[in-house]
Amino acid sequence: MFEKERLGEYEIKNLKELSRYAKGDIIKMTTLAGTGHPGGSMSSLDIYLVVFFFAKLLDEPQDRVVVSHGHTSPGVYASLARLGYLPLHDVIAFFRKAGSPFEGHVVKGTPFINWSTGNLGQGLSAGCGFALGAKLHDEDSHVYVLMSDGEQQKGQIGEARRFAKKFGLSNITAVIDYNHIQISGNIEKVMPQNIIENYLSDGWDVIEVNGHDHNELYKAMKKAREVDNPVCIIANTIIGNGVGFMENTEKYHGNPLNQAEYKQAIEILDLEDDLEFYKERRKGACAWRPSPTIKEEIIDGGEPFTYRDEDKVDNRTAFGKALKDLGDKNISKGQLVCAFDCDLASSVKTSDFAKAFPEYFFQSGIQEHNTATIAGAVSTTGILTFFADFGVFGIDETYNQHRLNDINKTNLKLVTTHLGLDVGPDGKTHQCTDYIGLTSNLYNFKVIIPCDPNQTDRAVRYAAKGKGNFLIGTGRNRWPILYREDSKPLFGEGYSFEYGKMDIVKEGQDGAIITYGGMVTRAIKIAYEFEKKGVSLAVVNMSCVRAPDDEVLGQLVKLPFVCTYEDHNINTGIGPFIAQQLLTRRYKGRMESFGVKGYGPSGETDEVMAAEGLDVDSMVKVLSGMLKRKKSRKK
Amino acid sequence: MFEKERLGEYEIKNLKELSRYAKGDIIKMTTLAGTGHPGGSMSSLDIYLVVFFFAKLLDEPQDRVVVSHGHTSPGVYASLARLGYLPLHDVIAFFRKAGSPFEGHVVKGTPFINWSTGNLGQGLSAGCGFALGAKLHDEDSHVYVLMSDGEQQKGQIGEARRFAKKFGLSNITAVIDYNHIQISGNIEKVMPQNIIENYLSDGWDVIEVNGHDHNELYKAMKKAREVDNPVCIIANTIIGNGVGFMENTEKYHGNPLNQAEYKQAIEILDLEDDLEFYKERRKGACAWRPSPTIKEEIIDGGEPFTYRDEDKVDNRTAFGKALKDLGDKNISKGQLVCAFDCDLASSVKTSDFAKAFPEYFFQSGIQEHNTATIAGAVSTTGILTFFADFGVFGIDETYNQHRLNDINKTNLKLVTTHLGLDVGPDGKTHQCTDYIGLTSNLYNFKVIIPCDPNQTDRAVRYAAKGKGNFLIGTGRNRWPILYREDSKPLFGEGYSFEYGKMDIVKEGQDGAIITYGGMVTRAIKIAYEFEKKGVSLAVVNMSCVRAPDDEVLGQLVKLPFVCTYEDHNINTGIGPFIAQQLLTRRYKGRMESFGVKGYGPSGETDEVMAAEGLDVDSMVKVLSGMLKRKKSRKK
Repeated sequence: MFEKERLGEYEIKNLKELSRYAKGDIIKMTTLAGTGHPGGSMSSLDIYLVVFFFAKLLDEPQDRVVVSHGHTSPGVYASLARLGYLPLHDVIAFFRKAGSPFEGHVVKGTPFINWSTGNLGQGLSAGCGFALGAKLHDEDSHVYVLMSDGEQQKGQIGEARRFAKKFGLSNITAVIDYNHIQISGNIEKVMPQNIIENYLSDGWDVIEVNGHDHNELYKAMKKAREVDNPVCIIANTIIGNGVGFMENTEKYHGNPLNQAEYKQAIEILDLEDDLEFYKERRKGACAWRPSPTIKEEIIDGGEPFTYRDEDKVDNRTAFGKALKDLGDKNISKGQLVCAFDCDLASSVKTSDFAKAFPEYFFQSGIQEHNTATIAGAVSTTGILTFFADFGVFGIDETYNQHRLNDINKTNLKLVTTHLGLDVGPDGKTHQCTDYIGLTSNLYNFKVIIPCDPNQTDRAVRYAAKGKGNFLIGTGRNRWPILYREDSKPLFGEGYSFEYGKMDIVKEGQDGAIITYGGMVTRAIKIAYEFEKKGVSLAVVNMSCVRAPDDEVLGQLVKLPFVCTYEDHNINTGIGPFIAQQLLTRRYKGRMESFGVKGYGPSGETDEVMAAEGLDVDSMVKVLSGMLKRKKSRKK
Repeated sequence: MFEKERLGEYEIKNLKELSRYAKGDIIKMTTLAGTGHPGGSMSSLDIYLVVFFFAKLLDEPQDRVVVSHGHTSPGVYASLARLGYLPLHDVIAFFRKAGSPFEGHVVKGTPFINWSTGNLGQGLSAGCGFALGAKLHDEDSHVYVLMSDGEQQKGQIGEARRFAKKFGLSNITAVIDYNHIQISGNIEKVMPQNIIENYLSDGWDVIEVNGHDHNELYKAMKKAREVDNPVCIIANTIIGNGVGFMENTEKYHGNPLNQAEYKQAIEILDLEDDLEFYKERRKGACAWRPSPTIKEEIIDGGEPFTYRDEDKVDNRTAFGKALKDLGDKNISKGQLVCAFDCDLASSVKTSDFAKAFPEYFFQSGIQEHNTATIAGAVSTTGILTFFADFGVFGIDETYNQHRLNDINKTNLKLVTTHLGLDVGPDGKTHQCTDYIGLTSNLYNFKVIIPCDPNQTDRAVRYAAKGKGNFLIGTGRNRWPILYREDSKPLFGEGYSFEYGKMDIVKEGQDGAIITYGGMVTRAIKIAYEFEKKGVSLAVVNMSCVRAPDDEVLGQLVKLPFVCTYEDHNINTGIGPFIAQQLLTRRYKGRMESFGVKGYGPSGETDEVMAAEGLDVDSMVKVLSGMLKRKKSRKK
């Protein structure tokens, strides 16, 4: 902990020795692996040593560390090993070996490492998330975000600065390893930037120190904890510090030393050459494993709300009401719930929650990249976390932030509205016709597109109680309530949402339309048009758009005709997925796909649907041709 | 043109009258459509009038305009109409009607509108692209980027500022409509920001004016043209300007006036209420059409290079050499070629081009969002434009920027390297296993993943000569050259790349492996293992991963077994696509997919492939089971 005013002579001497040894470790592990980033690891090393030595990492509430420039992992591993938190021999031997926990970029679960990084510019946002989580839990703890200078070029960092300032995150300290070298050379040549002025312009405090002087680093970090403002420490460093020929050159940014260079460096550092020992050890396997912790939540899902058409509730509003209800049910019991918005609360319907729980609603401005990462980080701190946005911003603009969330196995509940052509008059740039196509790439996301307000209510509560990342998607328009034959809401009493279940909302023997979301009601209309013609089409609601339901697929495969019908890019929606499912089941019938084939016009949804041939009339026409031909063939 | 020192009395009076009329137009079109953003349109209006009146828009070389806050389209349409560039009655009548060119967000091809916008924060980057294009063409022209204040929160704008400063884009003027209101209210509350300090910190000049004083706007814009630095004009404005009850409230940011409010506003503006006329006209269709211009290039594709294994060239290097050759062949003839890099030139192999043509190589730093948009914009100015990056940055991080490029029908040649698990020891955050899954959502992108250096060379030249957006993807490792039976390179002499063609690189009758990129060589090895067992497997190279080749598919559909095999997310690669193609062709055999099922470890590619069960040995084992069972069934 940062208690005394300055370091004692012994501590300084000790840190210097640790630094010398750790430099050797960095060089050994990168040369042994034949890959890695020794230069930056050596310039960041003294920062790591001071943070890992003095931050409150063992007692609860722990300080948290995010190493944003994850490629300096050798520096992280070496300093943690030299401080006794990692097995030194394994760290050196197994760096960047497949299956080893000592990956090329730092991985969450390594002691005190709270976020897997590797794509630059996202670490400060993650740090803001942890700092906010700590504030919400009323924890007396601090967050350290360690960054490179080159990554300051990323715009997301400016967004994070503004967020930290707005929400008074004085419990965050950023430390920048200012070694002036990025892969392509001097940062002043690669992309000139006034880093200090940038931080000051966003209202942060800045402290400048010698980043290889442990005492200066210590004093700056101590001061940063005391200042009632987010603080950025500019640590002036030297890339390759400690080994003359490695200093101030980009050559060793991303390249390890060769054997001759290695020997020379070890001699300069006055260390033992034991590379053979590690080479031998590397043939085995590393036993040590990281243990990431995600704080578990205990969520009261509440009692579902059931709507009828006369309630005039759309899916967005159903989400908003469920969110508010989850707040009501949980926050008073101490299970925190929060929601993030990017200047669209009134459209994505988080306003009711915001009014009821202003302290748990975070208006993050038009800064989607930052917000996606912050929400992901907060969701790992035991707080039920929603991020609601339009599809094009919450998914398209922030895809890579969610990919990093996915890698970090966050617990985020992402809700996107205004999906598909259903967005209406906003036009092309606002048409998110790729929400399935994109999120299908995220290995740990569950995607649900409910078809009416009642299913939305239940899906939201399901996702709230479920572990891991969920996307719940809706359109802009009000979609009708689905009713049972007894006029009670189909997804009302007696229904409970189950992930992976397809709903047969209309039976049929001559074929089936598989669909979801706002197209379900259209599909039912289409099917009833065919009833008049004596053709019986089933309608299947596939709200879990990437989950095969064996039971229903087993029935579908017996039908002579199956089509998919969606307000989504035809190439990347459920069409190819269902085709694959049917082919695997040796389907013998005919399959067709209907979906969006290009950017649509700007107009009311029904007009836009008609322009794309996806309205009920167009569909009846085109299906008539297909089903007629099929019938006549049979004769 | 900005020639005289200040505006005359008559001009000022004229502009004031135009402004009054245009405000009425804005109110009429939004009320009639029942949707749209009148408030910001009215605060931006006087800026639009001054720019469209005085900028050099009719003579070559034209000044260019980017309206970044595209939702103020009513202001753009009204001012262009009042200045005689658009048909006034149609503008009012057909705003936001499906099929009309007067879309909710401005669309490229509207007079003087050079970029379709709607997702905030990208306009300054597009403007930088046009300003750079003009500089490269040695044009005496200027670029105006008109923005909102709220969107200044987006980090990409900071990236664009730094780019403009670095490359001395003194031919760009940004004008910010500083009305202090965004959708959720006062911008100082939504997300406090020091806009002026932000611009100054990045080295721009700032001029502050009254944004409703045409003379002040004129003088500031004139000065901005003269200053040898990028200039930002802060135009202090009032949202809803001119109609008292609309001023300084967020209510009319995204909502039109209702009938009563409309009548009141028209009275305040002292204009005629002719809404009925437009209501009637709206029943028809708009004849006027935008005419976007993309400058055509005349590319000399050069003579392809042919490599043999002993040349030790990987696909990345083959790209780099082809790029350099395209520079050699074209630049001297006046057909410009340029390349953008985000601090990875030595890895993505644009270094040779950079050395040969430093004035056409743009080191853009770690600012991928900005770079993707700039490259897109430059590609529409008659310059052959390459943007090369790692997959996770060039695709995943910048997906939405490319979506906007796609909407803008740019002519970008995107080259991404280090795709798939082939990236090796960099680990999860650097594994781009979604390059097909993502780009398949872009309606106007062609995607090519060549399988060896010779095919890469030819694909690069093909894309260079082809119109529109291309993605060419490669891995990190050196993939072997494919040879014909006569030992000549398969993709050497006599081969020409043709988009959409599958290559049968090995014949076989018992089944086929469809694959691409670095897996082709592995597939051939697998097939030869099976030859030893008496099973004859064909290997098909599908370098155009989203294009069906009817001829080859027609042959495949006759085989008893087909599998896809890819270094890509199994859910979103060619697997489901091929399944759909086979199902449509009534395939009766068995189909299986092999691909990446989760984030892989950090290690050498072969180790990582083995860990994921995608190496040759694992594949032979699992396929043996399948093919054995199939054979025994036959008996």
